[in-house]
Amino acid sequence: MTTLTNTFSFEVLHKSKKSKARVGRISTPHGSFLTPTFVGVGTNGALKSLGHDEAEQTGLDLMFANTYHLMVQPGEETIEKMGGIHRFSGRTRPIITDSGGFQVFSLAYGSVAQELKSQGTKKHANSVLKITEEGVKFRSYRDGKTIYLTPETSIGAQKKIGADIMISFDELPPYHISSKALSSSFERTHRWEKRSLEYHKNHPTDQALFSVVHGGIDPNLRKKSCKILSDLDFDGHAVGGSLGKNREEMVEMLEYTLPCLPLEKPIHLLGIADLLSLHSSIPLGIDSFDSSYPTKAARHGTLLTDNGTLRIVSGAYKEDPRPIEEGCLCRACQTVSRSFLHHLFKAHELLGLSLASSHNLHYMVRYMDRVRQKILLDEI
Amino acid sequence: MTTLTNTFSFEVLHKSKKSKARVGRISTPHGSFLTPTFVGVGTNGALKSLGHDEAEQTGLDLMFANTYHLMVQPGEETIEKMGGIHRFSGRTRPIITDSGGFQVFSLAYGSVAQELKSQGTKKHANSVLKITEEGVKFRSYRDGKTIYLTPETSIGAQKKIGADIMISFDELPPYHISSKALSSSFERTHRWEKRSLEYHKNHPTDQALFSVVHGGIDPNLRKKSCKILSDLDFDGHAVGGSLGKNREEMVEMLEYTLPCLPLEKPIHLLGIADLLSLHSSIPLGIDSFDSSYPTKAARHGTLLTDNGTLRIVSGAYKEDPRPIEEGCLCRACQTVSRSFLHHLFKAHELLGLSLASSHNLHYMVRYMDRVRQKILLDEI
Repeated sequence: MTTLTNTFSFEVLHKSKKSKARVGRISTPHGSFLTPTFVGVGTNGALKSLGHDEAEQTGLDLMFANTYHLMVQPGEETIEKMGGIHRFSGRTRPIITDSGGFQVFSLAYGSVAQELKSQGTKKHANSVLKITEEGVKFRSYRDGKTIYLTPETSIGAQKKIGADIMISFDELPPYHISSKALSSSFERTHRWEKRSLEYHKNHPTDQALFSVVHGGIDPNLRKKSCKILSDLDFDGHAVGGSLGKNREEMVEMLEYTLPCLPLEKPIHLLGIADLLSLHSSIPLGIDSFDSSYPTKAARHGTLLTDNGTLRIVSGAYKEDPRPIEEGCLCRACQTVSRSFLHHLFKAHELLGLSLASSHNLHYMVRYMDRVRQKILLDEI
Repeated sequence: MTTLTNTFSFEVLHKSKKSKARVGRISTPHGSFLTPTFVGVGTNGALKSLGHDEAEQTGLDLMFANTYHLMVQPGEETIEKMGGIHRFSGRTRPIITDSGGFQVFSLAYGSVAQELKSQGTKKHANSVLKITEEGVKFRSYRDGKTIYLTPETSIGAQKKIGADIMISFDELPPYHISSKALSSSFERTHRWEKRSLEYHKNHPTDQALFSVVHGGIDPNLRKKSCKILSDLDFDGHAVGGSLGKNREEMVEMLEYTLPCLPLEKPIHLLGIADLLSLHSSIPLGIDSFDSSYPTKAARHGTLLTDNGTLRIVSGAYKEDPRPIEEGCLCRACQTVSRSFLHHLFKAHELLGLSLASSHNLHYMVRYMDRVRQKILLDEI
């Protein structure tokens, strides 16, 4: 499955007869992989308690790293000096970075969940100093240093980081926003994306650049965004911006948005990969999904299985000699019982976090493998 | 090196011509290993952030688990039901358990360091309810349940846990103690050890039982302890009790104690394995050493190398592309640079703890391997 190529390419290998789902192949300078795929989140260039050697053995095709965090620590200059994110981190398989915008604006408006909860009244604007046409100025949470993020500095940083796929710099508008403000943010975000692409074209590398489709839950804005971005020479498109206040709104949005994107480019869904969302959005044609949920849930003792989630701290598993899931080939299922994993969590042993993360990541990889098989059989 | 045997045995393979150091071979139901050896501490049956698969790859011959902690969580009954500590934890190589006494008395008197600092005035007796000739009654820190630890219940619990080597139940007297109280504790601890051995003989398993040599820093008491314990049918001896207030006192104590122990049985030093202590005590004839220091130091970013310790959080390593130590075959040195490890610690990524632990444990294993070679060459 892994073949080394020098440039990014995407090929659709099979279109399902049952839905808009497809099996594709993405090639990058660090190997090829099949889609739809799950993208593990390694915010700081690491999957928390999991080593890249383990993640690669598990079969994780693509890892998502966050430019904002990497700019703050260790800094993109250090990563460049160390030979880029692959040599720096030791991961040999493909990596994707975001633009930093999402984190900067999350800090301004609070997390999506917080913002939804506060109906948009609560602002956490301390870290964001100024948003202008040029870009956004913010204060590093680490050392108070002022960082100026613009389309040019974001893509510049992503080039220094050196992931296989970059994402253009955009503005994340809050869910609760006046239509005038949304429209103004919408226009600016597309100007920023164009500038991202221009900077990329003027500073060529073998990296790919994805756009971010915006428009909130407004069908006309989403369609307009697709039109603007499809006409530009992006290597792929990511569906971002406000994805709605619940899964139903998101799925509805994807239903009217995805048909407006070109079929020959890969489509990524930003930050969503719970099993119900995968189930709903793979048939609509999404090719990749990132989420920190599987590893985060693992660290809280919530394990993914075909029979639903399993809370390993439950007393029910105290003397259960079975692996987390029969037939699973992850490091946890191959080496320890539910009983021992329960004990590790009860005794607050760090090993429990690694083993649980290994299982959940492996579960997602295996889940997507089965999804691809079903698409090839026209069952999805 | 690994051959499966059903019973415990110890064989001296070579005595150094330069010192009392020796290379030996200990055989257990879970394999054989060479001595002198470093024993990693897995208090709760796990080496904190390191999996048993990793520790075994690293070459860790023997792991120390703490009976006190295992009785409190998950309980020795659960471990027995799960098939014993090996099947429960997934470790396939030899394991040693202590008696639980050290922890119970540490809780009563405070840690050795605390007790030394307070000159014996500070007592933490809340958890210890009563010490009698029969044993010690204490309260579980976990659920407040009363646990009664006696020679019989300690060995009984260790049999249920099922480690390859057990340690007899003893009393740990504080360093600051009247000679009358020390003498009374001394007599009782040897009566407890005899009862431990009797219980073991009356409930035979293929486990070995080590004594604990007591006597503080009193040469006559140490010699008397050696005499009493050597006359009994223990499989090996552990030097315990108060080891003095510093390394010099400990080494002096070992100098007059070790010649009083039988040469044909293995000798363990309890809780001490810093490099300077190893350097001083291996030539005196110690065969095994346990310490939580290498893995604990690792989790605090202190890495062991032949050029001394390396504080990975130091800015000096921010852009250092070298591995922790050239030539080291540990997982950290084989997969990441000092620069990335520095970043992992700065970014508080859990992976840093595992990688650092892997290095320090590997360092100790390799250090002891070189020690054995030097003994075989009569250079130690």
